[in-house]
Amino acid sequence: MNEVLGHPSTKLDDVVHQRVRLGILAILSEADRVEFTYIRDRLAVTDGNLNRHLQVLAEAGFARIEKRSQGRSRTWILATREGRAALGDHLARLQQIIDATKELS
Amino acid sequence: MNEVLGHPSTKLDDVVHQRVRLGILAILSEADRVEFTYIRDRLAVTDGNLNRHLQVLAEAGFARIEKRSQGRSRTWILATREGRAALGDHLARLQQIIDATKELS
Repeated sequence: MNEVLGHPSTKLDDVVHQRVRLGILAILSEADRVEFTYIRDRLAVTDGNLNRHLQVLAEAGFARIEKRSQGRSRTWILATREGRAALGDHLARLQQIIDATKELS
Repeated sequence: MNEVLGHPSTKLDDVVHQRVRLGILAILSEADRVEFTYIRDRLAVTDGNLNRHLQVLAEAGFARIEKRSQGRSRTWILATREGRAALGDHLARLQQIIDATKELS
């Protein structure tokens, strides 16, 4: 690809960009760790759907799933350092697209 | 979904959000109409891939494909008024996610 000609959208990583996963990473950036059910409810997705997207993030090294039992069992999700950096990079690229489009209007 | 609890990412429309289609709409916002080959080269996608995404945008009423023959045949793509509005709304929602995440850091 011609770097001068290229468009910033070509640098967006689908692992982060996909709507539900972008939501997950944004929510995870709000705290050290977040409960599975809290993410599910904020994103209005099913358990199965959330699990599938968490799996993709975990495989990319961007999120970790921790099951803890203290009385009742809870599943906690946290973003790794790499996941937080990937979100930051991604949002910077989106900002670039927004700014370029704004300049035109 | 609880509106107070909900996350802005849940309002992102996949038709616009998908990486290649977001790139197409952003490029189309730069001019009245753009040649097929120019979009293909800037996004570094194949003809087939670009065609598939243009079809999705056309079916949503966001883009129009026009074939014109003057000497050599050219395919022009343009964003409809609805497509330009959808991109504007989408970028505003992305800005909301970016700003909310920035507040935390």
